[in-house]
Amino acid sequence: MTTLYGYFRSSAAYRVRIALNLKGLAYDQVPVNLVKGEQKSDDFRTHNPQGLVPVLETDDGAQLTQSLAICEYLEERHPEPPLLPADAEGRARVRSLAQLVACEIHPLNNLKVLKYLVHELKLDDEAKLAWYRHWIAEGFTALEARLASESASGAFCHGDSPTLADVCLVPQVFNAERFECDLSAYPTLRRITERCRALDAFAKAAPGEQPDAG
Amino acid sequence: MTTLYGYFRSSAAYRVRIALNLKGLAYDQVPVNLVKGEQKSDDFRTHNPQGLVPVLETDDGAQLTQSLAICEYLEERHPEPPLLPADAEGRARVRSLAQLVACEIHPLNNLKVLKYLVHELKLDDEAKLAWYRHWIAEGFTALEARLASESASGAFCHGDSPTLADVCLVPQVFNAERFECDLSAYPTLRRITERCRALDAFAKAAPGEQPDAG
Repeated sequence: MTTLYGYFRSSAAYRVRIALNLKGLAYDQVPVNLVKGEQKSDDFRTHNPQGLVPVLETDDGAQLTQSLAICEYLEERHPEPPLLPADAEGRARVRSLAQLVACEIHPLNNLKVLKYLVHELKLDDEAKLAWYRHWIAEGFTALEARLASESASGAFCHGDSPTLADVCLVPQVFNAERFECDLSAYPTLRRITERCRALDAFAKAAPGEQPDAG
Repeated sequence: MTTLYGYFRSSAAYRVRIALNLKGLAYDQVPVNLVKGEQKSDDFRTHNPQGLVPVLETDDGAQLTQSLAICEYLEERHPEPPLLPADAEGRARVRSLAQLVACEIHPLNNLKVLKYLVHELKLDDEAKLAWYRHWIAEGFTALEARLASESASGAFCHGDSPTLADVCLVPQVFNAERFECDLSAYPTLRRITERCRALDAFAKAAPGEQPDAG
C-alpha cells in the first residue's frame, strides 16, 4: 500500500495528494502535525531524517521525499493520465512553471522561514505579512504574465488538461488566500485555479477535506 | 546554435553550464550582469520577461527558463551521458537531492532575497550573514546526513558518475565558500565536491572561468 505522510495545510503535501488523485492511485494518509512539531519526532525521522513532509512510502517500501521528485516518480511509474506533455519543449515549459512556484515562491513563505522572521529577526506581524505578500506578488506577477501571454496556455496552465504546473499552482493560491493576499491582478491564475478546483482530484486534495483538518 | 544567457556567479546558470558540459554540448554564452541590473533591461526581457537568468535558447529558438527544467530538457534531448539513473527509485533519489538544494537552500540565499533583507528589513551585514549561514547549515546538515548514510551514495552523490544532484551541489558549495561558511561538518559534501571539481565539465563551468568573471 502507498502511504503519504503529510499535513493538511502543507503545500508540498497538497501537491502530492493532487498528483496521486489525478493518477487515480489509492493511498493511506498518516498525518504529521507540523504545528505540534511531530515532524521532529524520532518516530517520524525513521521515515525522513530531515523531519519534513511529505514522504511517500511506496508499496515497495521506498521512502521518497521532495514533492516534485515524488510527482516525477508517479509520472514515470504511472504514465496515465500524463502530468507532463509528450514533447520536450512542452515538458520544459510545464516544469519551469512548476518550479517558478516551487523554487521561487513557496521556499520563501514556508513555516520554518516565517518562524525565523519572528523568532530570530523579531519581525512583528505586519512585517511578516509584508514579506509573505511581497514574494507572492513577485512570483504571481511573473506567472500571470507567462500564462496570459504564452500560446501553450489553455483551460489549464498547459493546454486543456491538468499538469504538474497546476499541481503546484493550486496549493500556492490556497496559501495566498489564507494570508489574505490581493489576487485581483492575476485573472488567469484565478481562472485556472477555479477550473482545477472543479475537478474531483483537486477538490478531494484540498486541506479542508483531509483527516487532520482542524 | 545553443545560447546560454547567464552570469558567472549565478548558481542557477552555473548548474546549466555543468549540465551542458557533461553532455558535451557546445554553446555560446551571453553574460547578463546581475549586479548592474541588466536582467531588468527591455532587451533581456525579450528572452525572459521575468528578468531572471539562466535562459537557454535552443537551436530551435525556444527560450527555456528555470535551471532544473533546462537540465531535464537536456537529459531528454541528449540522453548520453545520463544525468539521472535508469531506475525510477534512483531517479527519485537524485531529484530529491537536487531539490533539497534548489528548493530549500538556494531560494533563501539568492541576490533578490539578500537585497530584501538589507533594503526592506534593514538588516546589518552580520544579521545578513547569519541568515545566509543558517540556511546553508540547515540544508547541508540534511544533505550530509543523507549522503553519508544512504547506500546509493558513491564517489558522487549517486553512484560513481555525476548526476543532477552533483550539478546542484557544486554551485551551492561554491556559494557557501564565497560567504565563508564553515564546511568542516560536511566531509561527504566536501569529498564529492572535490571529486566533481577534478572533472573538466565542472572545472570549465566554474565562475572564475567564465568570460564575464570580474
